[in-house]
Amino acid sequence: LRINGARLRSALDTVNQVGFVPGHGRTRLALSDADRDARNLLVGWLKDLGLEVVVDDVGNIFGKRRGHDDRLPPVLVGSHIDTVKRGGQYDGVLGVMAALEVIRSLEDHGIETDRPIWVVNWCEEEGTRFPPGLVGSAVWSGLRTPDWAYGLTDSAGLRFGDELGRIGYRGETPAAACPVHAYLEVHVDQGVVLEQSGKTIGVPKGIVGLRFATMHVEGRADHAGGMQMVQRHDALCAAAEMILQVNALPNRFGADMVTTVGEMHVRPNSRFTVPASVDFAVDIRCWDDDLALRAWEELNEFCEAAARRRICQVSGETLLFTGRLPFDQSLTSMVEATARELGHTTHPMASGASHDAANLCQIAPTAMILVPLIGGRSHVPEEETSWYDCEAGANVLLQCVLKSGAAVS
Amino acid sequence: LRINGARLRSALDTVNQVGFVPGHGRTRLALSDADRDARNLLVGWLKDLGLEVVVDDVGNIFGKRRGHDDRLPPVLVGSHIDTVKRGGQYDGVLGVMAALEVIRSLEDHGIETDRPIWVVNWCEEEGTRFPPGLVGSAVWSGLRTPDWAYGLTDSAGLRFGDELGRIGYRGETPAAACPVHAYLEVHVDQGVVLEQSGKTIGVPKGIVGLRFATMHVEGRADHAGGMQMVQRHDALCAAAEMILQVNALPNRFGADMVTTVGEMHVRPNSRFTVPASVDFAVDIRCWDDDLALRAWEELNEFCEAAARRRICQVSGETLLFTGRLPFDQSLTSMVEATARELGHTTHPMASGASHDAANLCQIAPTAMILVPLIGGRSHVPEEETSWYDCEAGANVLLQCVLKSGAAVS
Repeated sequence: LRINGARLRSALDTVNQVGFVPGHGRTRLALSDADRDARNLLVGWLKDLGLEVVVDDVGNIFGKRRGHDDRLPPVLVGSHIDTVKRGGQYDGVLGVMAALEVIRSLEDHGIETDRPIWVVNWCEEEGTRFPPGLVGSAVWSGLRTPDWAYGLTDSAGLRFGDELGRIGYRGETPAAACPVHAYLEVHVDQGVVLEQSGKTIGVPKGIVGLRFATMHVEGRADHAGGMQMVQRHDALCAAAEMILQVNALPNRFGADMVTTVGEMHVRPNSRFTVPASVDFAVDIRCWDDDLALRAWEELNEFCEAAARRRICQVSGETLLFTGRLPFDQSLTSMVEATARELGHTTHPMASGASHDAANLCQIAPTAMILVPLIGGRSHVPEEETSWYDCEAGANVLLQCVLKSGAAVS
Repeated sequence: LRINGARLRSALDTVNQVGFVPGHGRTRLALSDADRDARNLLVGWLKDLGLEVVVDDVGNIFGKRRGHDDRLPPVLVGSHIDTVKRGGQYDGVLGVMAALEVIRSLEDHGIETDRPIWVVNWCEEEGTRFPPGLVGSAVWSGLRTPDWAYGLTDSAGLRFGDELGRIGYRGETPAAACPVHAYLEVHVDQGVVLEQSGKTIGVPKGIVGLRFATMHVEGRADHAGGMQMVQRHDALCAAAEMILQVNALPNRFGADMVTTVGEMHVRPNSRFTVPASVDFAVDIRCWDDDLALRAWEELNEFCEAAARRRICQVSGETLLFTGRLPFDQSLTSMVEATARELGHTTHPMASGASHDAANLCQIAPTAMILVPLIGGRSHVPEEETSWYDCEAGANVLLQCVLKSGAAVS
């Protein structure tokens, strides 16, 4: 039994026309018109399969296929169809379309299962629009409240709750987890680790610890031509020193750590004015929680000292902090064994990228099925995989669903 | 004979209500609605004085007071009423209002002059909206063409020519200098040099050499959690090294140099994406042209090396380069002598800030009358001077106009 690769490709391509701008990838920021249009496609397909479609009150979409014993905890499979700005064609949407294709394949072959199988599209995974992301799965998993989600604002000041209503995806069913037998998510790897291993299926032991923070640097605006250098309080120069220090942390704390400053805002951002203030984002990821904490503490000490030298002030604000999140060992082992049964090579790893699975693994047995990314290029228009690997990942998902769902015919 | 200080203060305060937001200073970006409203005030006042008002085809406003011999080259006095974002209450507008007040004082006392006296408001001095600034005076002085001005675009892609028409200040008179007997501009100093001298009137020998450039750094976008550090092409880290180098140039090339990075743009500027590209502004000012050139060349070498280390590419684009611009020695001496005759202390200096006088001094005898800034804070809402100094500057202007214009009654 295999999935229909051509049909999976076609579904992917159809969704990826939504928000596509030639040369600039796909932009389906959460709760945008493009996100709504992609959701509408998905809901249509789920209904075509005769599934019960449920939209919960934070915008997660479930397509529920009944089991022989529909009271059993379901097998939940899916991911997200929102993207970053100018994103690629696999991140997130591959997992949702693979889940859809699994259901289509079950229908093709008239296969029923003891357990219900639910396809899920989680709302606002990326966090590009409403940081820190993973919003829908966090609320559904009980880690956050709906009101927390509703109050999130985008850079234009628009609120998550309002935007969810605007696109017509604020459902009435409360977002609240039921017991889940297994959560499985197919996703493209977002780094170079899996590709460099030369293997087809990545089997993460879990998600690395994450810290998403913002540094606020306060200096003083001055005329660029009139203020002598030594009397300046140049917030941008202070921030530049700090950014280089963020970048240097992995060299000092170990190769498994990755750190990034991806976003910054300079005020007033005027060519002829010494910058008065700078905010910049800090992203620290590491499997070793102790190292990650020490790196953050040392970064703060460095930033304090750099700010003092530049006659500025600095404060750090952590938006999200999680220690590493291990997945379910027996489900992970089943993914690995299933992949090998299908003739694929596998690679045990840690996921440096976060996923909705990071929330789900806190309430249900969870595993992921990663496929290799080419050249490590994710969150970019050029994001690419080999199609062989995508099909392989979807077939591993199908077999795992058959096992977990207890196929009966 | 003295100007009417209370009337000058009142005119200043009236213009400064335009574009004012409490706590955020005044924002009258060139060719904005606020700029238009301030222009309308000025034009009304010039007409009330019976002056002939001429708006040229790049938006400069002239108020022409006839001389006994109106064919003689005029004495031109003024500055600009546009501001940076969140600017102060003196930069530019003090010089225009002082010029207006000089005419009002001549009228009060029925004083006529042999030469015509023209008040001028130059269009888009600051360059915050349409870099590199000094636009109207550059075209009028023949250093740039009207088409160059019309084609300038702001960050929203709006064109100078269109915006000039939109606010109703695209006149029909060609912007073209006639012979000018003397150009005089009162302005607040924009640094700490004059204040620290303890003197009342600053008499600049000229404007320092300027280079306004933009550095473009090209790296590569990658997923913040998935791409290993050593394989990144992080444009922001490369830019951070370059920005610190810009900041370090004056330490190496001499204390009279000042350098600034005031503006930068990070793309895609997304928390979870390694920055793909960064543009940042470079501002180098120095009285010594050779040092300034060596600093720019060395900066470029450094940037090339930093880009290579970070697997990025860099290119520098100079938007404006001028060597130092000396003012007219005899006119400068007259300003100094006049200030002393009025009992004020004077300080010879170079202006680190550029002004429309930088363009005018290339076609006409030019001098400036600077008044001290408190704490060196210009281009900020808190910009402040002592009112005694402002009146002193306006009175020096009045006496210089009487001498240059050859008062006859």
